[in-house]
Formats: sequence, C-alpha cells, structure tokens
Amino acid sequence: LDLLPTPHLLVDLATVERNAQRLADYAARHRLAVRPHAKTHKSLALAQLQLKSGARGLTVAKVGEAKVMASVCDDLLIAYPALDHARTTAIADLARTASVRVAIDSQMAADALAAAVGAAHSTLGILIDLDLGMRRTGVQTPEASLHLARHVAQTPHLRLDGLFCYPGHVQRPPNQQGEQLTAASQLLDETLALWRRAGLPAPIVSGGSTPTAYQSHLMPSLTEIRPGTYLFNDANTLYGGFCTIDDCAAVIVATVMSNVIPGKVIIDAGSKTLTSDLNIHRRDSGYGYLPDYTDATITRLSEEHGELDVSRCQQPPRLGERVRVIPNHICPCVNLQSSLWLRDHEGQAHLLPVDARGLLS
Amino acid sequence: LDLLPTPHLLVDLATVERNAQRLADYAARHRLAVRPHAKTHKSLALAQLQLKSGARGLTVAKVGEAKVMASVCDDLLIAYPALDHARTTAIADLARTASVRVAIDSQMAADALAAAVGAAHSTLGILIDLDLGMRRTGVQTPEASLHLARHVAQTPHLRLDGLFCYPGHVQRPPNQQGEQLTAASQLLDETLALWRRAGLPAPIVSGGSTPTAYQSHLMPSLTEIRPGTYLFNDANTLYGGFCTIDDCAAVIVATVMSNVIPGKVIIDAGSKTLTSDLNIHRRDSGYGYLPDYTDATITRLSEEHGELDVSRCQQPPRLGERVRVIPNHICPCVNLQSSLWLRDHEGQAHLLPVDARGLLS
Repeated sequence: LDLLPTPHLLVDLATVERNAQRLADYAARHRLAVRPHAKTHKSLALAQLQLKSGARGLTVAKVGEAKVMASVCDDLLIAYPALDHARTTAIADLARTASVRVAIDSQMAADALAAAVGAAHSTLGILIDLDLGMRRTGVQTPEASLHLARHVAQTPHLRLDGLFCYPGHVQRPPNQQGEQLTAASQLLDETLALWRRAGLPAPIVSGGSTPTAYQSHLMPSLTEIRPGTYLFNDANTLYGGFCTIDDCAAVIVATVMSNVIPGKVIIDAGSKTLTSDLNIHRRDSGYGYLPDYTDATITRLSEEHGELDVSRCQQPPRLGERVRVIPNHICPCVNLQSSLWLRDHEGQAHLLPVDARGLLS
Repeated sequence: LDLLPTPHLLVDLATVERNAQRLADYAARHRLAVRPHAKTHKSLALAQLQLKSGARGLTVAKVGEAKVMASVCDDLLIAYPALDHARTTAIADLARTASVRVAIDSQMAADALAAAVGAAHSTLGILIDLDLGMRRTGVQTPEASLHLARHVAQTPHLRLDGLFCYPGHVQRPPNQQGEQLTAASQLLDETLALWRRAGLPAPIVSGGSTPTAYQSHLMPSLTEIRPGTYLFNDANTLYGGFCTIDDCAAVIVATVMSNVIPGKVIIDAGSKTLTSDLNIHRRDSGYGYLPDYTDATITRLSEEHGELDVSRCQQPPRLGERVRVIPNHICPCVNLQSSLWLRDHEGQAHLLPVDARGLLS
C-alpha cells in the first residue's frame, strides 16, 4: 500500500460492509426496500456487495450507468427525466432484457419514452417525480402529479408504477430533519390520497438521499429509499452528523510535495482529485478533512496542488509524507478516478475499476 | 452533431488552430519558445497540433501525462516537484529515451531524482522553481534559489538547466498585469544576476500561464512560456479580458431535461461535467457562460443537474433544446471526459480520446 502512486482513492472494505449492513438492518426494521444509488461508486463489484446485503435493485443517474450495471442487476431505476433521443432509445433497448423504471416530470418525457419503447417492443415502468421542496425537478403540486400520472396510465408501453421524490434540500442536523420530513410526508400522503381517489395505483413510493436515510420512517408512505453516499461517507455526511469518522470508508491518499512557503505544505491532490466542492455544512472548512491533521485546512486548490494551512499544527506533515484526506463530497471524487484501491480484511489492496465513469447520457 | 448524446464536450478545430497560431506569432516576434501545458487537453492529437504550430516541446503536471505525451514529443517538462518513489522512478525511466526536465524546489527532490536517474543510467535536466508571488511552490528568495542550484550543479546525473516560475497569482486585467509582471521580472533578473556571479548557467528561464501569455515580453529574461488554457479558452479567460467569445473553442453541449420550476430550467450538465469551479473574475456569474442565453445564469449544480435561472430571459430555452455552455475553467472539465468531439473545417465531428486523463502520479 505504501508504494502505490499518489494521489489515489483508498476504500476500506470492512467499513463499506458495515455501512451497507447498518442501512440494510434499518430498512428491514421499517420494511423499506433499499435501491442504492450507484452514482457514488460506479463500480460493479460494490454494486454486487450492495445487492448481496439485500438491496432490491439499483438506482442510476445516467443511462450509460444503467447499461453497465445491467450486467449485475436486472432491476434498475433511472432517476433522471430522460426525454432526448440518445437516452430514450438506449432505455428502450435496455428495457427488453431488464426491469427498467424512469422517474419523469413532463409529458414530453412520457411521450418520447413511449415512442422509443414501442419501437423496441419493450415495456417501461414510470414513476412520477414530485418535488418535495428541493426545487430542482419534480411536478409542483399533487394535482400536477395526478395529471401526468393519468397521461402515463393511458399511454401504451408505459406502466405507471408510482411516485418518486428526492428530499435533497433536507441537509440539516437530524433534529431539524424530522420537521422537514414530516412536512414532506404530508405532501406525499396528500398526493397518494388524490391518486387513490382517481383509481391510480402507486405500488412504489421511492424516496432518497443519504442525509435523510435513517429518518425515512418519518415518511411512512415510502416503500423504498435510494441513498448513495452512505456506503463511503465523506466530510459532508461527517459534518452533517450522519456518521462518525469511523464510518468514513474512502480517503484520498496524497503526498506532501513542497513545504517552502512558511505555514503551508503542498500535497499532490488538487481540484482534479478532490473537486472544488465546498463542505455543505461548513463552507469555511476547506476542501476536505484531514483525519490525522485536524488542525490543518486545505485552503486553496490548483488542478494538481492542494495547499494546506499548517500554521496551527504542532507538528505539520513532513516533505514526502503521505496524508489522508476525506473529501467533502465523495461521489464526484470517485468519478475523477479510473480505478480505486479496495483494502480487504487482510490489509491487501485490490484495484477496482470505476466501471461506469466517463459515460455520456 | 445533433444526435450526439449529451452532455458532451465539443471543440472547434478552426478556433483551436487560430488560438495556437496567434500565440506562435507572438512568441516568434519576441523570440520566446512555446512549451504548451498539455494538462489542458491531455490529447495526443492536440499536442501534435501545437507541435506543428512551432511549440518547442510540452509541459505536463503528472508523470503519467509525460509518459503518454512521450509518444508524440521527446522534449518534456514536468512542472511538478517530483520527490516520491513512484514519480522519480518513472521519470528516470522516461529520461532514458526522451529529454526530460523537472522543476523542483527542494533538496529532497534533487536527491531523490538523482538516485532514481543514477539507477536508470539516464540524465535529467533540472529547473529551480522560484516563487514570484503565488505562494504555492517555489523557493522564496534569490539566495535560496542559488543554494538549491549549487546543490543540483554538484549532484551527479542532474543537469542544472535554469529557472522556472509560474506567475499564477497574476490574473488581473491586462493594465494591472503589467505592473505585477514588471515587479516579478525584477526578482527574476536579480536571481539570474546572482547565479551569473556564482558562475551558474541558466540557459532556460521558463515562465507560464495563459492570462500573462501576451505580456511575457514584460519579463525579458524569459526564454520560454508554458500557457495551457489559451488553446481552448474558457469563461475565466473571457471575463479576464484575455480573449473574446470568438476565441472560445470548447463548449459543453447540454440538453434541457426539466422546466417545471417557475423561472428555472434544468440541463444535463452538473458538477460531474462543469466542475464546481467558480469564475475567478466574477464569482457571482454562476457555473459557466451561456453564449446563446446571456440573460441566464447557472445558479446551482448537482452531480448531473445544472439549474439555470432563466427568469430574466425573454425566451428561455425549451424542454429538450440543446444549449451550449462555456465552462469557467476548461482544464478540469476536459479531465472529466473520456473523449471529446472535435468539429473539423467541414463541420464533421471526430471523437478524440482524452489520452492522458485518469492517471495517478
């Protein structure tokens, strides 16, 4: 491990397994299906680990990811409102051999998907994306959801499977999450009541997000959840109170390359390794968390340089030393790597390809 | 082109050629060698284009990039203070078949490189990295540069080739750049005078950066420059006054995927396509510039969603429409793609691999 070139992404298998099991136990207790979002790892091996720990299927953001993940899973949710030619034709093709669902928020998406699926003689499940307050995608009212659901139910080749929501705006500490989720839950229930009165089925009510994962029971209508980050964790989930430092499974290992500027050291992890993402909860905490140098802050990034303010360190990292960084947001960091190193239970490192990175639509 | 899956990176060949030629003409006028930084494109084909337009050699940030670029260029500068085992052994190996130089700022780097190069029976050129005010890497005083230069000159297998500087802190509009560069130039001259008195050679004085490229004659000691971004340009060089919109050769082409939130549309380019880099010159200008919708702002990114505030647009982009985005910083955006599309003089698109992306050290 000490000879691996830096910067590299190192994932601890025991921690990953513990994180997967903890969520599986919670979900079983509350009779929720788990459909992990594979955008976090984009790895077939880690998807298989999630499926072995009881995941119902997988979630993806890109159709290209769905195509890759189809080799290990035949139950896929594309959490993206596909409506363009490249996506709809690829989805239709995939739906011939796997159970595929898409979350949409427009009639245009429904019609484009139906046309592609019809041409491919396949069938597609549709979830209606309902906005619970994030204001990104999702129909804006229960009435609008009913309108779109009716349209889907009447469209050949599409099967109305239920509702989809993403409470991505709920990032506050757990005590505040409760109130926000209860409000979101009421909107969900109101919507489902409207659908029931209209005779429309909603066998699936799909929720999501790692920060809210262990509060999902506050939204009793949910049938499944789609967290992604929970498998690795990062400085966002750490500062957000979702996990402890022992639950952080993924670190960037970097080397100190220069220490000529007083009060600073330079590591070989810059924005092409850590991304420029700030911490959601502490925007002044720098570009990652240094578990072995908690008095140091990554204050500035170039593409291949990370600048650490070590002026408050009793003993700053030495030139040539390796340091560990927990990134603010692990998902785009994994996406920057072609492969990651997985440390197994015996401490051996195995190279794991990030199978589904670098794909277009 | 209209059928290519989105989001994709589209590069216009005619604009690239014009950008390369303009810099080549300036450099020839001022007797400067051009050693473009290949980190911007990481493409063998575009490196060859730069070499054809008169570039003396190539600059890289990573040893992995150097190894890839060695297939089209035998004169490489590694602008990174390599001192770890992975880098020094790879550099030593590369130096057996190509002319390789490394810019360093520590005795540890000199000694580690010399040991590796000695073991490989090769020779390595060394430039001493002198900080001109960026405060990232580089020895801090002319005296410190002399001390390190003497050490290098006395170390077997190393050849002292001169000075290296990176005025990356000079990002102001051209009228202010002049003063900052004149101050930097004085420090450079003072250092070179000290070396001369000590009998140390400096045949190469390597400067850099796209923002300062056309002010390089204000630093008359420079023998070569190392701009990277100039080939493509981006919203940073646009807002910085370095180029016009017609000089922007690279755009992200994205599709409008959702428009249910009043005043917003959502495109399929998020932080995994545009990065989270803010504009250096206008931090409130959002995550990229929309040349066809100048009243729209990319206000928030998720990994695969870009949220556009279109409330000030007379006619916002329609659902399913393709929009062009000039990223704030093109280099890390290219690094996110496995391939880019090059539009040739006939308007045909060719897939070009980003050959040197995803490498470690």
